Amino acid sequence: MMSAENRSNLDAFFAPTSIAVIGASGDPNRIGGLPINYLKGQKFGGAIYPVNPNRTEVQGLRAYASIADIPSGIDLAIVAVPAPDAVAALRICDEKGVKAAIVFSAGFAEIGEQGQALQSELNDILRAGRLRVIGPNCGGCVNFHNGAWSTFVPLLRDIQSPPGNVALVTQSGAFANYGFAVGRRRGIRFSALMSTGNEVDVDIADGIEYMARNAATDVILLYLEGTRDGPRLARALRAAQELGKAVVAVKVGRTKAGAAAAASHTAALAGLDEVYDGIFRQFGVARARSIEELFDIGYACSTGRWPGSRNVAVVSVSGGVGVLMADEAETRGLCVEPMPAAARAKIKDILPFAVPNNPVDVTAQTVNDLTIFEKALEVVLQDGGYGSVVSYLGFMGRSPEFVARLLPLWQSFQRRFPECVLPVISLFDDKTRQMLLDEPGMMVFEEPTHALRAVAAMCQIAEALERARARGNRPEAKGSAWHPAQDGQLDEVDSLAIIAEAGLDVVPHKVVGDIEAAVAAADEIGYPVVLKVVSPDIPHKAAVGGVVLGIDSSAEFRKAYARVFARFESLSGRPRLRGFIVAPMLSSKGEIIIGVNRDPVFGPVVMVGRGGTAVENLRQVSFRLAPIDEAEAIEMLKESGVADPARAALSIAALNNIASAIRRFSEFVADNRDSIVSIDINPVVLRHDGRWVAVDALAVLGKQ
Amino acid sequence: MMSAENRSNLDAFFAPTSIAVIGASGDPNRIGGLPINYLKGQKFGGAIYPVNPNRTEVQGLRAYASIADIPSGIDLAIVAVPAPDAVAALRICDEKGVKAAIVFSAGFAEIGEQGQALQSELNDILRAGRLRVIGPNCGGCVNFHNGAWSTFVPLLRDIQSPPGNVALVTQSGAFANYGFAVGRRRGIRFSALMSTGNEVDVDIADGIEYMARNAATDVILLYLEGTRDGPRLARALRAAQELGKAVVAVKVGRTKAGAAAAASHTAALAGLDEVYDGIFRQFGVARARSIEELFDIGYACSTGRWPGSRNVAVVSVSGGVGVLMADEAETRGLCVEPMPAAARAKIKDILPFAVPNNPVDVTAQTVNDLTIFEKALEVVLQDGGYGSVVSYLGFMGRSPEFVARLLPLWQSFQRRFPECVLPVISLFDDKTRQMLLDEPGMMVFEEPTHALRAVAAMCQIAEALERARARGNRPEAKGSAWHPAQDGQLDEVDSLAIIAEAGLDVVPHKVVGDIEAAVAAADEIGYPVVLKVVSPDIPHKAAVGGVVLGIDSSAEFRKAYARVFARFESLSGRPRLRGFIVAPMLSSKGEIIIGVNRDPVFGPVVMVGRGGTAVENLRQVSFRLAPIDEAEAIEMLKESGVADPARAALSIAALNNIASAIRRFSEFVADNRDSIVSIDINPVVLRHDGRWVAVDALAVLGKQ
Repeated sequence: MMSAENRSNLDAFFAPTSIAVIGASGDPNRIGGLPINYLKGQKFGGAIYPVNPNRTEVQGLRAYASIADIPSGIDLAIVAVPAPDAVAALRICDEKGVKAAIVFSAGFAEIGEQGQALQSELNDILRAGRLRVIGPNCGGCVNFHNGAWSTFVPLLRDIQSPPGNVALVTQSGAFANYGFAVGRRRGIRFSALMSTGNEVDVDIADGIEYMARNAATDVILLYLEGTRDGPRLARALRAAQELGKAVVAVKVGRTKAGAAAAASHTAALAGLDEVYDGIFRQFGVARARSIEELFDIGYACSTGRWPGSRNVAVVSVSGGVGVLMADEAETRGLCVEPMPAAARAKIKDILPFAVPNNPVDVTAQTVNDLTIFEKALEVVLQDGGYGSVVSYLGFMGRSPEFVARLLPLWQSFQRRFPECVLPVISLFDDKTRQMLLDEPGMMVFEEPTHALRAVAAMCQIAEALERARARGNRPEAKGSAWHPAQDGQLDEVDSLAIIAEAGLDVVPHKVVGDIEAAVAAADEIGYPVVLKVVSPDIPHKAAVGGVVLGIDSSAEFRKAYARVFARFESLSGRPRLRGFIVAPMLSSKGEIIIGVNRDPVFGPVVMVGRGGTAVENLRQVSFRLAPIDEAEAIEMLKESGVADPARAALSIAALNNIASAIRRFSEFVADNRDSIVSIDINPVVLRHDGRWVAVDALAVLGKQ
Repeated sequence: MMSAENRSNLDAFFAPTSIAVIGASGDPNRIGGLPINYLKGQKFGGAIYPVNPNRTEVQGLRAYASIADIPSGIDLAIVAVPAPDAVAALRICDEKGVKAAIVFSAGFAEIGEQGQALQSELNDILRAGRLRVIGPNCGGCVNFHNGAWSTFVPLLRDIQSPPGNVALVTQSGAFANYGFAVGRRRGIRFSALMSTGNEVDVDIADGIEYMARNAATDVILLYLEGTRDGPRLARALRAAQELGKAVVAVKVGRTKAGAAAAASHTAALAGLDEVYDGIFRQFGVARARSIEELFDIGYACSTGRWPGSRNVAVVSVSGGVGVLMADEAETRGLCVEPMPAAARAKIKDILPFAVPNNPVDVTAQTVNDLTIFEKALEVVLQDGGYGSVVSYLGFMGRSPEFVARLLPLWQSFQRRFPECVLPVISLFDDKTRQMLLDEPGMMVFEEPTHALRAVAAMCQIAEALERARARGNRPEAKGSAWHPAQDGQLDEVDSLAIIAEAGLDVVPHKVVGDIEAAVAAADEIGYPVVLKVVSPDIPHKAAVGGVVLGIDSSAEFRKAYARVFARFESLSGRPRLRGFIVAPMLSSKGEIIIGVNRDPVFGPVVMVGRGGTAVENLRQVSFRLAPIDEAEAIEMLKESGVADPARAALSIAALNNIASAIRRFSEFVADNRDSIVSIDINPVVLRHDGRWVAVDALAVLGKQ
């Protein structure tokens, strides 16, 4: 098997020295003609070999009857013939030692059984481990820096494409085309374009990892439908994070309707959307809900400037639009802190009618006098200490004279305040907009709320990159160290034993077999106590009357025991009785739930959520791939509302204690991923001394 | 006082026969020159009288030294002089019998104390009840159907503005300008534009009500910061709903940061955002979170076509984008039901590789063969029965030839399927986009998710208009009929009495003064019972140990009584003791909370929420202005998650019972709005027979 490093070396696709085009056409509009047209037009520096048995010359180049006839070695073959012929061509490519092939041809697994058979033949060729393949049923690859345009995406012909620093990696061929056009309109300069198609070999994870290592690429935009190999996708996203690349993703199949549609559209697993959400947060991927948002955020990230903090100032020529922007900022998790008093006074000196708080309302006066804006912005930048200052200029961007004066002002501010992002929102005419989009470092928007949305996404990405820098490289899971004696659903006693093994504090409890032993145990523990029936066949004890809480005395305890025993005896299905747990009734300042589940796509996924009935609400839980560290655990606690900064319910010590426990648990389940199907610890209660104690647990074990 | 009907008659502003411009300028770019320039350019049919003491002629028109010198009567005066001069001019206008004035001048209440004094002088002039005023500090009004352009909004000069059916009413002058430009770019044709400024007289509610009655207007777009008179705003929105007008609003100040910014920007009260949300739902106002969304929805509504239901079909040339659209549809509350089996088979006949479910993936084949698309759409429309069919065409819109073929197809479908909305999403070049925007009934988008967002908003509006039609005109509240004997915070006994007065079932309970009476009451009621202390000074009894639930016997009851009594005795502050409530412990299938609060802006606002701890979560409650009817109560129950269609926890009978109770309660509080500060009924429990019983209540009474 190929190493992961080798897997994601896609140089033969993106930096080939020679390209053969199988199914070469003289018509530059056809699927077999377009790539030759592109390669020639882009002055691709390597050799181009058209292959067509019926032609001796194609688009002015010598053509070959078969790839076997080409005298020299070949890095990359583009395959643009019908599916059955494509399989034959790939066989010859493999025999000839061609390094890589891009298969445009449709008619494989995506069309059902017949195509699946052809795709299996393709898999047979790949098994030798020599040839690498992108596709089939893909739009190809483009490297905008070296003319290697191995694609038939038609819009590249019509739209200017200066090389840049944004890679678009997509599982949808149609999206390569559409996304390229939308991105260009948004001012994005692309470094590379890659459409992965049916992913018979190279998949989206390889694409991400390659772009992460690609020096020309700073931002990776993803269009993702799903993956069959979650761990590899996670590894690629982690690589991007560790290499400091910004990743923005549209992941479709968010909803039930969407997931159903995705299932009928693609063979890849859509996966539980909340798990994707958790993984995106874990690796600092900004998630976009629309195509517009994907490219808005991608554009903002491509400027190479990053907000120094979540503190944002809004400077607006309209008080009302300023309020709208403050709303959006808060909704997106940015902080709209007021200006310092001294700075407010300075603004008042500049413009007595200004409202100098934050938003800073510089009023429509600015339209007549740009120096007001200049001076106000100077104060905000100098004295405010904001991570971004977002300026709304109304329709002033429609005036080329105004913009000509604005530009040097902005360039000077950007030089002087490199830690601050300075988006400008205005209406522009087409020419002015294009000019500003081409201006390095400028960040322009036309919809005020979108500027805040992009700034918030940039903060999320920057924070995640910073976390990765602070953490350094993460150790991989060690692999199974622990060999459980049994499989299947465990009873509470055995489940708690596993939790203790994982390094969590477990409530001290006694397991007893009869009434006298039980009373003795209760007396020894001291009241109030809890009594629970123990049976591997009763996962939800409370629902069948198998739990009595807060028993205050021996007398009460005897009654409770009798009740629980009678209830158990009355159960149908003859559940096995292991005995009874007697444990102290712990007073609690709050409770949470910790769990893990072996996700079919990603492996062990840790879950943290608020206790009580809130679990039913998915918005109250947070997911991460195991293992995680303490910092990540704290983020999970924040996301799930357990550690709500607004409520400050947790002491720092209590927060650190539980974060450390979650870290240990996540490492344990990662190390033992081959044995653990799922574990729910519900609840883990917070004691008054800041310690956390697991009170109940349910584990299911089983081999992968 | 003016009647509401008269108040909102703004004909003198929008259909004047003569206009004087005070502060008239010969420079058509200045604030006093632009309106004259506009009125002349738009061939305004009435008389135009420039007023300027230093000129005998302005822009080719005879000028007058003072408005008093103008020989004839005047409908409308435009005031474009500095604030102190404006007050003097308005005084002369009033004396001369001018009907209405628009005051552009800034420098009034918005700048603080000094301006407030000037605004008071303006109020003095208005007190006579003759002159009507829009402003001060406003952008003016425009009627695009008769050339009455009484505005200095500069972009009107630069941008074509064919008359249409969409009115823009805004509290921000800057937004009149910016919004007009953004709206025009989105293809909106405006009927009228109105900027209300400081609202010294005419306010946004008058504007809404006038546009609701305006025959040329079908859609009203609002930019709203707040209102000082909630009931009038509600009345205007209700009028718009009853007259079948679509209303879309941006209401800023959604968040804490936004509300703080709004408070420093405008004198109008921002108001509790959740209350605005409830009122918007009540009157079918679609709420937009961005400027782009406001005009996207406004544009869609202006086409005059409405979706027949929430069932939406997605037809896409890209499977992946189809999934993205299905996600957005479900997120926005639309239904993405699969196509009927027969229709699926027909699609397969047309294109074997198509995925015919819903989204219908017609694949990129369609790019080469439009007839595929034509036939597939025919099947979806004919056999699917959808309320809207949203088509994603990738980049095909960039081809003028393709669009030329598409257009007659669409026109024919629109004729044949009038109950279905047919948005088209594609990339367009500027000319093609403009051509399609100008095409009546066409609905074009470039971002796929935005089409679904607009369809969902249209469904919300259409459903609300339908509800209003079904309901007919709503009776006004009757006014106070009931005269409570006391004020302030009531104890539980008196609070429950009010609930009973309002027509709700209240738990049968006995009020007792001593232990023997209490035991006798408990014995008579039958165990289990509840014991509660009654004191007007203890609103939250349970928190001080004043409540014992589920008492099973006389013996337990005596112990409980002793405990509660001891706890009460130990309380500091010497609370008054009225006695004890003994009531049956009701078994419950679920519980809800019903409340009312006298909102400082809107008056009595009814709240419904899920019981238990969920109340703390604002998303779990729903608000409406009292009174409401049963249908509205059911919507509240759905919004707050009480009646969750997915969980089907409530029987139809139980749902109708509680809806009827909420209706009665809302009528009672509306009738007695002058006496009731707030009432919380917590909980109202659902019995097994489908009846609902109020178990506890807390009322606060007091004059308005």
